[in-house]
Amino acid sequence: MRIEELFGIDLPLIQAPMAGAQDVAMAIAVSEAGGLGSLPCAMLTPDQLRAELENIRTVTDKPVNLNFFSHTMPTYDLNREQQWRACLQPYYHEHGIDPGQIPPGVSRNPFDHKMAEVLEAYPPAVVSFHFGLPKPDLLQRVRDCGCKILSSATTVAEARWLEEQGIDGIIAQGLEAGGHRGFFLNTDLNTQLGTMALVPQIVAATDLPVIAAGGIADRTGIKAALSLGAAGVQLGTVFLLCDESRVSDIHRQVLLDVESPTALTNLFSGGPARGVVNRVMSELGAMAEAPPPFPLATGAIGPLRTAAEQQGIGDFSPLWSGQNRTGCRSVPAASLVNSLFEGLQQG
Amino acid sequence: MRIEELFGIDLPLIQAPMAGAQDVAMAIAVSEAGGLGSLPCAMLTPDQLRAELENIRTVTDKPVNLNFFSHTMPTYDLNREQQWRACLQPYYHEHGIDPGQIPPGVSRNPFDHKMAEVLEAYPPAVVSFHFGLPKPDLLQRVRDCGCKILSSATTVAEARWLEEQGIDGIIAQGLEAGGHRGFFLNTDLNTQLGTMALVPQIVAATDLPVIAAGGIADRTGIKAALSLGAAGVQLGTVFLLCDESRVSDIHRQVLLDVESPTALTNLFSGGPARGVVNRVMSELGAMAEAPPPFPLATGAIGPLRTAAEQQGIGDFSPLWSGQNRTGCRSVPAASLVNSLFEGLQQG
Repeated sequence: MRIEELFGIDLPLIQAPMAGAQDVAMAIAVSEAGGLGSLPCAMLTPDQLRAELENIRTVTDKPVNLNFFSHTMPTYDLNREQQWRACLQPYYHEHGIDPGQIPPGVSRNPFDHKMAEVLEAYPPAVVSFHFGLPKPDLLQRVRDCGCKILSSATTVAEARWLEEQGIDGIIAQGLEAGGHRGFFLNTDLNTQLGTMALVPQIVAATDLPVIAAGGIADRTGIKAALSLGAAGVQLGTVFLLCDESRVSDIHRQVLLDVESPTALTNLFSGGPARGVVNRVMSELGAMAEAPPPFPLATGAIGPLRTAAEQQGIGDFSPLWSGQNRTGCRSVPAASLVNSLFEGLQQG
Repeated sequence: MRIEELFGIDLPLIQAPMAGAQDVAMAIAVSEAGGLGSLPCAMLTPDQLRAELENIRTVTDKPVNLNFFSHTMPTYDLNREQQWRACLQPYYHEHGIDPGQIPPGVSRNPFDHKMAEVLEAYPPAVVSFHFGLPKPDLLQRVRDCGCKILSSATTVAEARWLEEQGIDGIIAQGLEAGGHRGFFLNTDLNTQLGTMALVPQIVAATDLPVIAAGGIADRTGIKAALSLGAAGVQLGTVFLLCDESRVSDIHRQVLLDVESPTALTNLFSGGPARGVVNRVMSELGAMAEAPPPFPLATGAIGPLRTAAEQQGIGDFSPLWSGQNRTGCRSVPAASLVNSLFEGLQQG
């Protein structure tokens, strides 16, 4: 089944949900332009989500995707937290931060029944999950809202597992993709696959529509993904310079240099996520031992980010980006969507 | 310029040189079928190379590619070697091997003037290098033979550097590719790019024909690579089950299971190379601290490989493979080449 029919959209395009980098404005713009706009919800409270959905409802009746994380929350471990703060100590010193004043805090909660309640009141067309899926009873509540359900797979085994849970489509997240790796069965980074290898293997292994993500920046990339058997594409990085993007000026400047390398790093959340290499990644190693597991690393590094950003410095900021920024344009998201599909044979 | 014209071939296909997995039979079969067959030369002596070239000359007048390594040979360090052997000690014990009897030895030499002399006597149509390029005077000798020259790039910066050296084409080696990473400027694995992101960026950054490598296993992959702007593709893994392949039965069996994961490992040579995960990779960690730099790790692990293989076990064998084995077929290489391009729109 074509994802255009499945989701009720005109173009086989999902705008990747990017927590911290966008809000409803981006989602609405992309959906109005004929793609599937996405709202990242992992950093929202249920009340905030309700307000956003009321907002969306007044502006558009087009389908929208809500994205949630479905990680298992790790137990808070004071020792790990202290190790992590000790590792950051020279930076606290440099920025005059008293780590004793940093409250423990969690920035990203997994999808739960309170969120499901909001969905029941304002059922979106599509709900996508990252890091697997919520428990069966919770997933069933989402299904019962009539939402189409997506999740990300980074291996064929993950794709098979997702298909067994009875969802509607699979996002094949190649290693090129920006932001957090959505892996949940095998978390060995060294065995993660590039888009070119991942997409056709998931297409062959499952009967679900496969949405290709990772490294796709323009029409030629979309064409390539469709050649590999993808039913559509999910693009994130390409939207980061759009007018509706909410990335900081620091982040924006970094994105403009298309050749600075990206790496997977666990320094900002505890889970590996792709961003442009900056000072803290270079100095501590992008994948370090010290940070506690996802999402517990965020609290301790947050104040450094804030302090540095106040001086216009991105040394401690997560500069999320995929491996291909050549398609980024400082235009309205709708123009970008149009240009991505201009002259592209549908099929 | 189309690589068909550049190399005098019918199809925009290079068979990837795979040292240890193939000999002239594969190269000849692919060249006769209209692609560019490749002979891996890094493990040959000049005399062996001369014999192979005489052999090729009697069988085909089609263009052939000779592949050489152009690494800088590291200094032998007895301490490093001892550390590496200490790390392997439990395995020596298990297999009744006396490490004192293992001679120090080097399995892969960089291209040198002796090899250039052989090329002058039997100039091939194409010479490709891995790990950068030889020094300018040596490269000039190859140019003076009238050979077209290729090398691999794993980043845009490497591609630009190669273009500056005046070569004829660039192999964009995506992270999905099997065997050794050809990187030579930045050797941080965490910043290496997938094919989907790498190919279009090298196409945009250079004026040379770009040959896409990594994760391409069939016609849809070739089509995808051409969509990304590649002038052709270099395929290796797909040929590993062909009649002309020289992989062991153990390796062959492992390749048949298309879902067993691959990883980059430095255990077999000292340099990161992609192969199917086996026991030694799982137990020591695929990327370990102990092995000396490329290519010095091979000597110490070799006897373990031999001992285990004699028992039909691949625990210590490099089971080279890219991330996509779905196109492997136990057929003559010529049939595979034909099927890869059957019905594919040219131009």
